Amino acid sequence: MSAIATGTTAAAPAVTPPDIEAAAHRLAGHVRTTPVISMSASDLDLPVPVLLKLELLQHVGSFKPRGAFNRVLSAAHVPSAGLIAASGGNHGAALAFVARSLGLRAEVFVPSSSPAMKRDRIASLGATVHVVEGLYDDAQAAATARQAATGALAVHPFEHPDVVAGQGTMARELEHQLAALGTDFDTVLVASGGGGFTAGQAAWFAGRKQVVSVEPETSQCLRAARLAGAPVEVSVAGVAADSLGAKQLGGVAWSIVQHYVGASVTVTDDEIRAAQRLLWDRLRLVAEPGGATALAALHSGAYTPEPGERVVVVVCGSNCDPATVVG
Amino acid sequence: MSAIATGTTAAAPAVTPPDIEAAAHRLAGHVRTTPVISMSASDLDLPVPVLLKLELLQHVGSFKPRGAFNRVLSAAHVPSAGLIAASGGNHGAALAFVARSLGLRAEVFVPSSSPAMKRDRIASLGATVHVVEGLYDDAQAAATARQAATGALAVHPFEHPDVVAGQGTMARELEHQLAALGTDFDTVLVASGGGGFTAGQAAWFAGRKQVVSVEPETSQCLRAARLAGAPVEVSVAGVAADSLGAKQLGGVAWSIVQHYVGASVTVTDDEIRAAQRLLWDRLRLVAEPGGATALAALHSGAYTPEPGERVVVVVCGSNCDPATVVG
Repeated sequence: MSAIATGTTAAAPAVTPPDIEAAAHRLAGHVRTTPVISMSASDLDLPVPVLLKLELLQHVGSFKPRGAFNRVLSAAHVPSAGLIAASGGNHGAALAFVARSLGLRAEVFVPSSSPAMKRDRIASLGATVHVVEGLYDDAQAAATARQAATGALAVHPFEHPDVVAGQGTMARELEHQLAALGTDFDTVLVASGGGGFTAGQAAWFAGRKQVVSVEPETSQCLRAARLAGAPVEVSVAGVAADSLGAKQLGGVAWSIVQHYVGASVTVTDDEIRAAQRLLWDRLRLVAEPGGATALAALHSGAYTPEPGERVVVVVCGSNCDPATVVG
Repeated sequence: MSAIATGTTAAAPAVTPPDIEAAAHRLAGHVRTTPVISMSASDLDLPVPVLLKLELLQHVGSFKPRGAFNRVLSAAHVPSAGLIAASGGNHGAALAFVARSLGLRAEVFVPSSSPAMKRDRIASLGATVHVVEGLYDDAQAAATARQAATGALAVHPFEHPDVVAGQGTMARELEHQLAALGTDFDTVLVASGGGGFTAGQAAWFAGRKQVVSVEPETSQCLRAARLAGAPVEVSVAGVAADSLGAKQLGGVAWSIVQHYVGASVTVTDDEIRAAQRLLWDRLRLVAEPGGATALAALHSGAYTPEPGERVVVVVCGSNCDPATVVG
């Protein structure tokens, strides 16, 4: 854990608890309340008991519909051209799901490097899928050009306050759930990609609970931003790159992370795979690498709780080939 | 739905709510509180919204540890020879888990017809596995002979009041969970094999909620008992036979079922497979055929709720090769 670099001007958080409260009301009936399960320490070979927030049971298998719904439902106007985004993964599926739910059109630009399975899922949800030769940036360029032509509402996976506020509804939901059970907690471990999800949780708690960011060591833009004092470009690789592989932390996320993320740790690809196997072996849950990354921090010792610290781990995504988990 | 045959003497229920209350206290800390997720009607292509009780997230992937723990923890004395049972499936894994948790020895007699994967799981939990040439009855005969020699505590998968009371702790847990959420319900759909699980739920509710038994049409000993007015032997086949394929309803179960099971329906193997695919497609949950059988009744229309009826479906097991669900 390194201190936040000093000498930079601290921006005000771009998302506040009232924004998330408003988002939660907007999202009512559109997203699932995902369950929490309490696990003993021995149950998952961990140093402490843990509460798992099973956000992988969200619509289309990840938290992404929260942000996408809030972005679209907050928009003053959705053009007849509908929604548009570049994504070969969870955000693309979420956008397609949101469009179908709200009776809107959606176009998703997918890099040819993304797995056919994910593309098929986006198409099966009714979106128009454009496969773009190359990597994510090529798909993004094509989406941008198309958006300029059609005027569709561009929905970025993380770089918008309404997206981050939507993701933050998970933290609000979690807090309400645990309060109903009479259970309190100290710390929430969250996997970070572009930072939107982690920032959403941190914005809701606003320092009332410790939010710990967990990244693959092969793809750590949040940690790099903390070290540099501002978002910087990083290289991206590893088993979780398809969901957490953002080249640079979002500015919206940074405005929150710099205030409210208490610690930032990294895990290896092997540790992520071990956490996936653990979730399968003990709970028969198929978590994708990014979905198991937060648990990997606790399981590997990358994050070590204090004695008595009450920890929640978010399992945030399920979209992968089960053969890679079970085999 | 056929009326219960008349002309037989109604036995008093062998398990009552106070038995289940006592079992719940005995089991505290030994079993997981499994989560409930609320799903809209459209979310699962159902005629009504539904609450899913995710009992497949229980230890070793099924409800079975509840009954096995209660049986063992209720025993006046556990011999040094430990525990013994015949089972190639979920009960065997549960027995091995219970033995490991309580520091006891366990021997499990497994028919050679059972999948190697399940045997390996039982062995990996530390039990001594004996593979017996033949089918379940052959394994049972070998277990009985061995029990006579060692004096180990025989733990039957369903034919004991303590086992049934243990299974009934799920109903008590469910009712407490939903009360905490301010949610009420009318009906619980449960898959039936030897009847212990269904009877446990029915014994807890004792007519306060409707319990609907769901069986594969290829393996329907509970329905046969209702039609005959007493447990009778049936033939057993189909995709769910490994977990629900009991030849005859247990007498303990029958003493409860005849009073408190309001309806009994059957589903086809194709309907069970469709429910498995639905749970995978919409929730990324791997449910075994027996685990998806209760949902199959609602999804196929074998059980049609009244308008406004509030339904809970129990998803009770996960142990199968994921390739059979995902493929």
